[in-house]
Amino acid sequence: MQLLKDRIKKDGKIRSGNVLKVDSFLNHQMDIELFGEIGKEFKKRFEGSDITKILTIEASGIGIACITAQQFSVPVVFAKKNQTKNIAGDIYTSKVESFTHGRVYDIIVAKEFLSANDKVLIIDDFLANGSALLGLAKLVTDAGAKLVGAGIVIEKGFQEGGELVRSNGVRVESLAIIDSMSEENGVTFR
Amino acid sequence: MQLLKDRIKKDGKIRSGNVLKVDSFLNHQMDIELFGEIGKEFKKRFEGSDITKILTIEASGIGIACITAQQFSVPVVFAKKNQTKNIAGDIYTSKVESFTHGRVYDIIVAKEFLSANDKVLIIDDFLANGSALLGLAKLVTDAGAKLVGAGIVIEKGFQEGGELVRSNGVRVESLAIIDSMSEENGVTFR
Repeated sequence: MQLLKDRIKKDGKIRSGNVLKVDSFLNHQMDIELFGEIGKEFKKRFEGSDITKILTIEASGIGIACITAQQFSVPVVFAKKNQTKNIAGDIYTSKVESFTHGRVYDIIVAKEFLSANDKVLIIDDFLANGSALLGLAKLVTDAGAKLVGAGIVIEKGFQEGGELVRSNGVRVESLAIIDSMSEENGVTFR
Repeated sequence: MQLLKDRIKKDGKIRSGNVLKVDSFLNHQMDIELFGEIGKEFKKRFEGSDITKILTIEASGIGIACITAQQFSVPVVFAKKNQTKNIAGDIYTSKVESFTHGRVYDIIVAKEFLSANDKVLIIDDFLANGSALLGLAKLVTDAGAKLVGAGIVIEKGFQEGGELVRSNGVRVESLAIIDSMSEENGVTFR
């Protein structure tokens, strides 16, 4: 998606440890007009897939998921990272290793919001080591739902996640795949 | 907002400890069509206010804020609850006491995303003890920005937050104000 790649080139900041800061438009400040275009692109890529629900993970996936959901006219469910007292009872759960925070945490979805009748599109902002995406995919399969695929805004193509998830048979559509990046040479897209 | 009140009556679940579960349409599963109507209502209430930015807090405020932002054609900034290694340097910060989790945490916004030129509308899903809203308001005033007001989806009118925040001179527009609720008698709106 050229508009997105141009924006990453223009406003993305590369930091040590393979960190790409896109917090001016994607995951701290959010450019809602750009999100609208992202939503349309996901709609185009998953056209005809008969999606019933979008699944994402808090926090930075939620905005993109909601705007994308308008295109498909379906509800969004976001997986929570910690169990709160507002969620009791039957839940699907899986473990996710955070690249950003360097720790493992549980993600949960209440069982009532994912069923065997659902055809689920996963939406997230980043795909790096693939842990979050595999964790979300496990929630879908645990529910007996159909996983239609995953729509990712930025994939770090130089990390193992994309290959790992695709080799598990998941259709992944990434709007920008970064093959390499460095503070000296900037970002190179696939 | 009648549509919202009807939905709370229909799908809200009252639990002990003054917990109102609206996770089937508001803060776990999200009804994007309802969010669209909520966004239009906030637009109506803050029409002519010349808003430049919407501020919310992760995680459950983000979806409503993004859909509302489409109405105002402005970006959204969400305050983060924990400092991650992706956010370094200059930040505004304040403390928030969580009603749901029973603990105090820091919220942060990178300074580059709130400036003295901004006219800020705060959006959140709940107003209860007012701590989150006052914390967000402090970020706005610390930045020297103008706080236009706060748009709240559900206000627990029997808790002190609404009065506390309004007595601080903040314009609060709540789409549903609950005066009382009990497992026996359900929800009574103001």
